[in-house]
Formats: sequence, C-alpha cells, structure tokens
Amino acid sequence: MNAEILAVGTELLLGDILNTNAQYLSKQLAQLGISVYYQTVVGDNKERLLNAYKNAFERADIVITTGGLGPTDDDLTKETAAQYFNKKMILDDKSLEIIEQYFKKRGKMPETNKKQAYIPEGAKILSNTNGTAPGCIIEENGKILIMLPGPPNETVPMFEKSVMPYLKQKQDYTLVSKTLHLSGVGESAAAEKIRKLMQESTNPTIAPYAKTNEMFFRITAKGNSIEEAEKIMQPAIDEIYNKLGEFIYGEDDITLVESVMKEIIKKGMTISVAESCTGGMLMSEIVNFSGISSAFIEGFVTYSNESKIKRLNVKKETIEKYGAVSEQTAIEMAEGVMKNSNTDIGISTTGIAGPDGGTDKKPVGLVFVAVSIKGNTKVKEFNLKGDRQKIRSRIVTETINMLRNELKNY
Amino acid sequence: MNAEILAVGTELLLGDILNTNAQYLSKQLAQLGISVYYQTVVGDNKERLLNAYKNAFERADIVITTGGLGPTDDDLTKETAAQYFNKKMILDDKSLEIIEQYFKKRGKMPETNKKQAYIPEGAKILSNTNGTAPGCIIEENGKILIMLPGPPNETVPMFEKSVMPYLKQKQDYTLVSKTLHLSGVGESAAAEKIRKLMQESTNPTIAPYAKTNEMFFRITAKGNSIEEAEKIMQPAIDEIYNKLGEFIYGEDDITLVESVMKEIIKKGMTISVAESCTGGMLMSEIVNFSGISSAFIEGFVTYSNESKIKRLNVKKETIEKYGAVSEQTAIEMAEGVMKNSNTDIGISTTGIAGPDGGTDKKPVGLVFVAVSIKGNTKVKEFNLKGDRQKIRSRIVTETINMLRNELKNY
Repeated sequence: MNAEILAVGTELLLGDILNTNAQYLSKQLAQLGISVYYQTVVGDNKERLLNAYKNAFERADIVITTGGLGPTDDDLTKETAAQYFNKKMILDDKSLEIIEQYFKKRGKMPETNKKQAYIPEGAKILSNTNGTAPGCIIEENGKILIMLPGPPNETVPMFEKSVMPYLKQKQDYTLVSKTLHLSGVGESAAAEKIRKLMQESTNPTIAPYAKTNEMFFRITAKGNSIEEAEKIMQPAIDEIYNKLGEFIYGEDDITLVESVMKEIIKKGMTISVAESCTGGMLMSEIVNFSGISSAFIEGFVTYSNESKIKRLNVKKETIEKYGAVSEQTAIEMAEGVMKNSNTDIGISTTGIAGPDGGTDKKPVGLVFVAVSIKGNTKVKEFNLKGDRQKIRSRIVTETINMLRNELKNY
Repeated sequence: MNAEILAVGTELLLGDILNTNAQYLSKQLAQLGISVYYQTVVGDNKERLLNAYKNAFERADIVITTGGLGPTDDDLTKETAAQYFNKKMILDDKSLEIIEQYFKKRGKMPETNKKQAYIPEGAKILSNTNGTAPGCIIEENGKILIMLPGPPNETVPMFEKSVMPYLKQKQDYTLVSKTLHLSGVGESAAAEKIRKLMQESTNPTIAPYAKTNEMFFRITAKGNSIEEAEKIMQPAIDEIYNKLGEFIYGEDDITLVESVMKEIIKKGMTISVAESCTGGMLMSEIVNFSGISSAFIEGFVTYSNESKIKRLNVKKETIEKYGAVSEQTAIEMAEGVMKNSNTDIGISTTGIAGPDGGTDKKPVGLVFVAVSIKGNTKVKEFNLKGDRQKIRSRIVTETINMLRNELKNY
C-alpha cells in the first residue's frame, strides 16, 4: 500500500502557514509501513484540486487530504471529491446535529456552517472532537480517500482516534525502526563506510540523515511481529556498530549533550565551564538537559582578558606571550575553572568567531578547546569556516564530543 | 509568471523533517508577485522525480527545487534535471575547487563529494556560502528550473543572494520591501491595531509575520522605479509608526539584540550578565553580535545557590528567606554582577524552566528578570508556558526587551 498526502489551502501556497500536517501524517504512515511517494499542496481552486486528485490517484492507493472542510465557499475538498468519484452530496443529520450542538454554547450557528454537514454519498464519517468539520473516508474501486480538517489540533486527534485503527486493520505486517546517532563524523564519510550494506539491504532499509553538526542512520525492518522485525534488523545494526561504533553516541531519541551529561551524572562527577568565543552557548546546551543541576555547578563567560585572569587564574604572562586565543590559554582556562569551581571536570573554549578580529597568523575560525578531567588536560585546535553563529555552534558540538571521548577513560 | 516548489528528499516523506523551505520560498515568491499553484514533495527516486519534473513544468513557468544536491548516490536532483532537459553533466572546475578548499581544513575530501561539482551543461551556477553543494539554474524553452540545496541555512542565503535578484530582473516592475521589527507585542494584537490599513491597502501590501518571541511587518510596494515604490509605501510606514511606534525596535535586517547592543555601545556603557535558568543562553545571544567586545565584559552562570552567593554576593539569607527563584534574588544577582564586574549595567535571570522543579507556589514557568543600570534596578515576574527550551528562549527575548525599555532613560 502506498499513500499520498494532499494539503488543500491557498494560505499554504502563500507561505502564511507551515505544513506541519504533512510531516505528522508522513511520520505516522511510515510507522504503519505505508509508503508515501508524494506530498502535494494545492490552493482553494476547484479545477486545480480536481487535477490534484487525478494525479494522486494515478500513483497512490490511499490519498489523505487536509484542509478545505470549512464553512466558506472556497472550502472545496469534499465537493470536488464527490465530483471526482461522481457522487452526490448528502446532508448527514447526525453531523448537522453535532454542529448545531457545538454552536448552542457559542451563540447562533451561521447558516454557512450547515455546509459542513454535507458528505459525499456512502462515505464513512469521522467525528471531530475539536471543531465543527467532520472528516470522511470514501472507498471506491480499490482506492481510498481520507479527508481530514486542516487545523492540526483537529487533524491529529481525528487521525489518531479514527484513521490509525482504520489503516492498521488494512495491513498484514509490522514495522520496527531504530535510529543510531553519530557525532564526530560527516554524513558522507559515515555513509561511505557502510555503503555496501546501505545499497544491498532491502529489509531492513538503512537511511542516513544529516542534522546540524551531527548525523544519524535509521534502520527499518518489516516482519510479522515486533520480535521478528527486531531480529531481522539486528545483523545490520551489529555491522554499523562494528564499522562506526566509535562515533555512535546513542540510540533513538537521545541527543549528544544528553548522552554525555547522563554519563557524567552516572559517574558521579561534577562539571564547570569557561567560555570565551562560544559566549554561553556551550553552557546553554548543557543546561537544556533538565537533569543536570546535580552535576553542573557554574560557569563563566570570560570575554575580556581581565576576566580570564581574575575569574580563572589564567596567567597574565600566558596571554601576553601566546595570546588569548592559544592552546596555553585554553588549557589554563579549563584547569582554572575546574580548580576555582572545585569540580571534577573543567572545559574551556577560546577562539576567533569572526567576522572581525582575525589576523594572518590567527584567522577567523581558529578555536582552541580544552577538556580537563581530574587534572588531566587535553587540548584541540580547530580551523573552521562559516559565519559567527555557525563557528560557535560547531565548537559547542565538538567540545561535547571531545568530552565524550575523554570520559571513556574514567 | 507562476512557479511551483518541488522539495526532493525521502526524509520529508518519512516525516523526519519539516518542509520549512516550501513556506519560506512561497512567502518570498508571493512578495515578488509570482503565483505558486502547487508545492510538491518527492523522494530520492529517479523515476518519480522525473515524473514530478514533467508534472511541474506542465503547469508552471518556474520550478524551484530544494534538496538532493548532496554527495551520496541517492542525491539525484541535478542528474534527473539533466536527463529531463537532455543535457550532459559537466564537471565544473571552480565548484570542485571550492569544495576541495572546504575540505582542506577538515581532512581528506571524500571521493563522493566530487559529485557535487558536476552541473548540467549550460546551467548558471549559484555559489553556496554555507555548504559544499552549489545550486544552479537551467533556462530552456521559456521554462526556468532553479535548484537549491536542502538545509535551510544553505537554501535561504542562496535564495536571497542569487535567486531573488535573478527573479527580480525577470520582472518588468520594481518591488521594494521594508521590514519593521516589533518586540513586546503579540502578532494578533499588533495586526488588530492596523487591521484596516492591512485589509485595504493593495499597493503597498502589508503582511505580518510571527517569529519566535517577536514579530514583524513586511511592507511591499510596486512601482516603475525604486524611488516611486518607496514613495508609494511611505504613508503606510508612517501610519504603522504612528500606531505601533513604541514596539518597533528596528527596520530591515536588524535583530532585537543587535539594536539593543548598538544602543549600549553608542552610550559608551558596559554590561555584565548573571544567569540561572537561562544558563548561558542570554549571553550567547549577546555574544553573537560581533561588535560587542568593547561593552560586554563577562558573565556568570550561577546554577547552584553556592555559586550565586560566591560569585554575585547574593545574601545567603535572601535565598533562605525568599528562595533562589524570587524577585529579591534576581535583584541581588543583577546588582551583584554589576558591582563585581564593575559595569554600568547588570542583568539577571532566575526561574524554573521545568519540566521538573515546580511547586504549587512556584510552578514551572515562573521566572524573575532584573535589569540594573547604574544602581537603578527594575525587576519583572514572568509566568510562562511551554517546554524548557521555549521558556528559556522566551526569557532571553523578554530580558533584552526589558533592557531596551530601561535604556530609554539613559
């Protein structure tokens, strides 16, 4: 079975609203093992909508529409579907009653809302718990058209309550997915390492995805039961761990910073942070993990040289001799914050995020990161490209990744 | 002229990512006066992509694709376009050089990335300032195909830098836009104040946009010259300033934090920051304005009570009596950091960002923000809804907005 998602609404074509329904429905259908080959958006225009129905049913078994079930004249989804399937529009008394009930508490029902109770003849009606527009399903010649309202707070409950069980009942297998998260390796370099597996394996399928500064693989298997699907995907997972294990920091919903912070908490360690060029962004990431208060004590954004000297005991001579952006300063910052804040771990960043401040010897993008754990300090030099925001955000990920690697020794 | 937006990527059909590019491009095209009748999403599949090209060019003059320009085998947008237009793929030396340059500092270039430098013969190349994939434009038989990369941080700058001027040049009138940025007022409240103007004015058009924690109006006028268009839009701009001037912090590309930081620098003032619940996010925003080093001295993330006492001289009794999340603690934090860091301005945040840590008396979302300028301190209580990230980010904007208002007195 394959499906197509058809969103109806001129407001989408004007960019006034974001098509979150398409993402939501695609995700749900993927989980159900129903392939989605196209998503389409069309405006409130009868001719173009009819054309969209024709195209969609030429290539899909199931078409799911969102939007265009409203009370106004330009809401045409049901009416055009009735025309496409050559059906009459019939007033559904029960739907009308529900709509009248809805307005009872809100004043008089506008006459136009009666339109929402008209349904293509023979369609299965889906009740709307959050609005006046009922949805409906037409089954005809092996094709299925599912019409849902547009506002996500109506679409989502209707899908979950009525459409999900309807679709499950049409299927004869189970799908299971697992996501492996990687950091410290680019998408193409990672894909290169398991290229053969990715190309040859059809069950499970293996797909790479790039996210800002990290990437992940999704492995999806099809089976007669969850257990069977899990068994089918295991060899592929083992092979990916085998080839790329050093870069894998977690599975499924975990984030890099979350996995590293959990590790720190598990080890009963504490951490403090000294930032220069990242200017608080690193701590902000750390603090976004809500469980961190037992491990993260405090941090400093030492933007000026004086601040580095006063707050972190960086030696004045170190800055004079090597500069604020140097291996030596990064080391003294990490060790200084660890000592002053009396924590097991101290981490530091110092660099030139640009666009100004670069020199021939120390260009924009030069950043030093130091990680000190119980007095053992590692420092790393980065030479990055991109704008200020990008350099800073990349350094945050690199720092957390470096911390992840160093923690393996403790 | 009408256009169609065609997003290419199986990750969109799986619901892994949201198609924000379609909204962005639709909005831009609407501003340019180019109608969009369809948006389509297709997966990384040659046959279906070819089919999507055929459909799109049957109904549109311009097709804009996003995605599928990556280095892996399943990135097919350019290759399939070349097939559709019956063109060869040619290695573009300059693009290859840029990609090689990109990898020089990152280690060895994976062999697969060479693929990104192949371009359909005769296409106009669009350089990518934020990634390795160049975009390109094919013009053929009165049709235009514009291919852009998928990651929004590459798509948007490429559209603005290269595609926007290209499309403007194809038009026989001039469009001029001005953006007014507002903070401290919601989208619907602001729109209500100029509702009549928005509804009745067709040249210029006035469109409201909501961004996280702020909003803006874009005023767009059509004329035979820039001067004429500017003259046409002026009365509408005057009216908006008239009705909403107190909320307008800047025009066009400026950000809220940038406008406030420029004001601080202009006044020759210095600033330091003490954060608890925002955990560095506020400073990170401040530091993202590159000119800030003369004014921003240092900052503290005092996550523990001990840290608040030790680094900011918050009184132990204050925390014991009122709690770490209180008006009194926020005031002492702001005044403490101002004094300890010897700056003109001290700002502080303390609150409960959740999801844990809330009580009946102090629920999740309760945050206190204090702004102290030369010893005069203002404090404000916020009761926010949303997840941890949302609460923290909202507080950052509110703090900077509060600072903006207080600065008016100096």
